[in-house]
Amino acid sequence: MKFILGAIITVFSLFSYQQSQAQQKDWMVRMAKIEVHPQYLEAYKSFLAEEIKASLAKEPGVLNLYAMQEKNEPHKISIVEVYANIAAYEAHIKTPHFLKYKTGTQKMVKSLALIEMDPIVFEEKSKFQNKTN
Amino acid sequence: MKFILGAIITVFSLFSYQQSQAQQKDWMVRMAKIEVHPQYLEAYKSFLAEEIKASLAKEPGVLNLYAMQEKNEPHKISIVEVYANIAAYEAHIKTPHFLKYKTGTQKMVKSLALIEMDPIVFEEKSKFQNKTN
Repeated sequence: MKFILGAIITVFSLFSYQQSQAQQKDWMVRMAKIEVHPQYLEAYKSFLAEEIKASLAKEPGVLNLYAMQEKNEPHKISIVEVYANIAAYEAHIKTPHFLKYKTGTQKMVKSLALIEMDPIVFEEKSKFQNKTN
Repeated sequence: MKFILGAIITVFSLFSYQQSQAQQKDWMVRMAKIEVHPQYLEAYKSFLAEEIKASLAKEPGVLNLYAMQEKNEPHKISIVEVYANIAAYEAHIKTPHFLKYKTGTQKMVKSLALIEMDPIVFEEKSKFQNKTN
């Protein structure tokens, strides 16, 4: 049983790896650098977490949203955003969950810089590999 | 057959999701900001790609390495690094593939800033979800 599972997972992983290599050229990758007014930091994070979870759950073209804050200056937020293509991004910014985040956090954001990126290499452990760590 | 596969994948995904939530508190997350001397950019990227692929393939504690370059200033590189814990990071910087990268690119790097991060939310499509996009 373990062997069959392993074989199934390997075949799926190889297939999805090849697909992801082919699709990567269409990706839209961006780094958002956001400075939040410190008094709103917790409220901002709550809006952001809700928005990210809804985006991944509801939008097939939103591939990754990685939000993090600097250890030494926690009100400085970085978000790595990966969309399947430009159209996926354009659909994303019209969704109710994005608009709720955008309007809800407007007064909390001190500055926002959006940096368009090209991926060099994006490598990650698959969920199945993680499981055995 | 399709149903059984789906069921297996769902069970695995739920299990790994719970595990990843529990493990996330141990993560070491970092953003490396690297400015490369432009004449060495292609050589640098080649060293970096080799190092990243070897790290993910050989080190169970290296979870993500996302390397990207700014569209408007391609010699400005950002790398999001996720390690399972500090010990995994400390082991990483002693590996032959990391040392090859580090020494091989030394003269190519104009500046390096390492920013320690706390994850807020890291959400991504699973490989299996990606497959259907």
